[in-house]
Amino acid sequence: MTLDAHAPVPPIVVLTTGGTIDKTYFDALSQYQIGESVVQRLLEVGRVTYPFRIVEALRKDSLDLTPADREILRATVAELATTRVVITHGTDTMTETARVLAGVGDKTIVFTGALSPARFSESDAAFNLGMAFATVQIAPPGVYITMSGQVFRADRVRKDREAGRFVPLT
Amino acid sequence: MTLDAHAPVPPIVVLTTGGTIDKTYFDALSQYQIGESVVQRLLEVGRVTYPFRIVEALRKDSLDLTPADREILRATVAELATTRVVITHGTDTMTETARVLAGVGDKTIVFTGALSPARFSESDAAFNLGMAFATVQIAPPGVYITMSGQVFRADRVRKDREAGRFVPLT
Amino acid sequence: MTLDAHAPVPPIVVLTTGGTIDKTYFDALSQYQIGESVVQRLLEVGRVTYPFRIVEALRKDSLDLTPADREILRATVAELATTRVVITHGTDTMTETARVLAGVGDKTIVFTGALSPARFSESDAAFNLGMAFATVQIAPPGVYITMSGQVFRADRVRKDREAGRFVPLT
Amino acid sequence: MTLDAHAPVPPIVVLTTGGTIDKTYFDALSQYQIGESVVQRLLEVGRVTYPFRIVEALRKDSLDLTPADREILRATVAELATTRVVITHGTDTMTETARVLAGVGDKTIVFTGALSPARFSESDAAFNLGMAFATVQIAPPGVYITMSGQVFRADRVRKDREAGRFVPLT
Repeated sequence: MTLDAHAPVPPIVVLTTGGTIDKTYFDALSQYQIGESVVQRLLEVGRVTYPFRIVEALRKDSLDLTPADREILRATVAELATTRVVITHGTDTMTETARVLAGVGDKTIVFTGALSPARFSESDAAFNLGMAFATVQIAPPGVYITMSGQVFRADRVRKDREAGRFVPLT
Repeated sequence: MTLDAHAPVPPIVVLTTGGTIDKTYFDALSQYQIGESVVQRLLEVGRVTYPFRIVEALRKDSLDLTPADREILRATVAELATTRVVITHGTDTMTETARVLAGVGDKTIVFTGALSPARFSESDAAFNLGMAFATVQIAPPGVYITMSGQVFRADRVRKDREAGRFVPLT
Repeated sequence: MTLDAHAPVPPIVVLTTGGTIDKTYFDALSQYQIGESVVQRLLEVGRVTYPFRIVEALRKDSLDLTPADREILRATVAELATTRVVITHGTDTMTETARVLAGVGDKTIVFTGALSPARFSESDAAFNLGMAFATVQIAPPGVYITMSGQVFRADRVRKDREAGRFVPLT
Repeated sequence: MTLDAHAPVPPIVVLTTGGTIDKTYFDALSQYQIGESVVQRLLEVGRVTYPFRIVEALRKDSLDLTPADREILRATVAELATTRVVITHGTDTMTETARVLAGVGDKTIVFTGALSPARFSESDAAFNLGMAFATVQIAPPGVYITMSGQVFRADRVRKDREAGRFVPLT
């Protein structure tokens, strides 16, 4: 892993799927929709030099994701050459998609997103993506979620929608 | 560790020491100086609910840190009850201070900072702090640096000042 | 007017009515709605020391404004002691409301708003509100609109919704 | 003027001279200096469609401006074909430069700047530039300053440096 300076650094692939993190405002429609992903911009502002590649897998509100969407996402991840995968995803069904990704093989997969759109001047997007980038580099293979300032195993977390935060499953 | 939902969550202590991350502009002086730490604000915007506590240890440009400052910092960390410590620090001598903190005991210590002040609309501060928060939760005891989108062991990294990035020691 | 340093400075009253400028994101609903007005915040960031007072008149998308709403707004403005009134308003029917305010008396009334929510890091809100604050201080009595970097007389402008800009009536 | 929809719209020329508004941070030097002007960016974010042109006249802290600099600036403004000129300028000697520009002819000249760098997420730059854009469109020929939320005649204002604001001359 990257903690060993002499090992080659495996690239991080970031799959974007939509969700609040990428919501933007279209004046001509007077409404918010999911726009082009802001992940590229966030990684530039974060001055990231660790090798990465961004792939748009989907562009949906996570409440609209279908079982077929999740299967495609699973297949996409399984076929990636790298062992380190970050997935940006809407928060409402993030844990559901994470469950489908379990057992995809010897990979470290980290889901993250935002409770507030990244285009807002006050958004949790950059912090959450930073957590995901660190986790994907140093956590053992498995599926994780980085939200609410915390690294969770994906099978031990749920979103508390009223409170607007991710909490441990008890 | 937090990846085990049934274990108690040890609080994160964030020690602030100054550096570019906290630089602000004082119009009455027509110059930039290190102001009150922005870490509290960054963690609020990041919607962090993991338990944390912020302690201002120093408020200096890292080029002005003395051996005495570093010893005080070391003693402060050694006395903390928690095993998880994040230290925000100027980037120019971050690796030097990190070396002094090595062997402080059974703690995970993560240094981070910013190449661009957090008060800028485009700053790496939130991303870097997010990386530090994830690393401190899941890395084994030791001293780390999270900069340039990467988690480094503190003894295997240097700042390339001309390039404006942290790179592995070779 | 304020250009005469020896004259008393009449206070500016800012009436907020809602619109895109005040749109925020409610995660628990997964949708955008009009939140508490950001005008106070914008004037603080703008370091405004000219005397002003903010009054929330309405909190609506401008497409939902009724003739009754507009009459109430007209009466509210007519009763104000000051001669200088800024009104933040949704852009879709801004010109329609402005028409109702015509002839309200010896006041300078300036409508403004935003094509992109003020909570976005890239929004025209601060610039537009700055234009409104200048116009209300120096323009003769009448009704104006400050959008798209331009000061318009309210009866000589329309919104070109496809182009996302305000243009002179020809 | 633009308030008459049937008159041609004279373009606004924005002369940039440096000052706090354009201050940026250079990590390799660990200091702040005046960088490339942010005016173009501010006008894009402001969705300005009024015709404008930006000219970099100087790139200095306003405390470093010399009488020769001011004469060059005066000559530059005098030679402009347009009657509408906005000048971004450091705040410490803004009134001094404005005095040199008095009587430059039949032009509306508006000075503005910022107490906090435009690159900060909380800066008065966008608001102040919006005030300048409105003032230059509708004020009669003369020299003005738009700072602290107010339109001043340039000969009736001073900067109160301790208070960090522009106040009327009494």
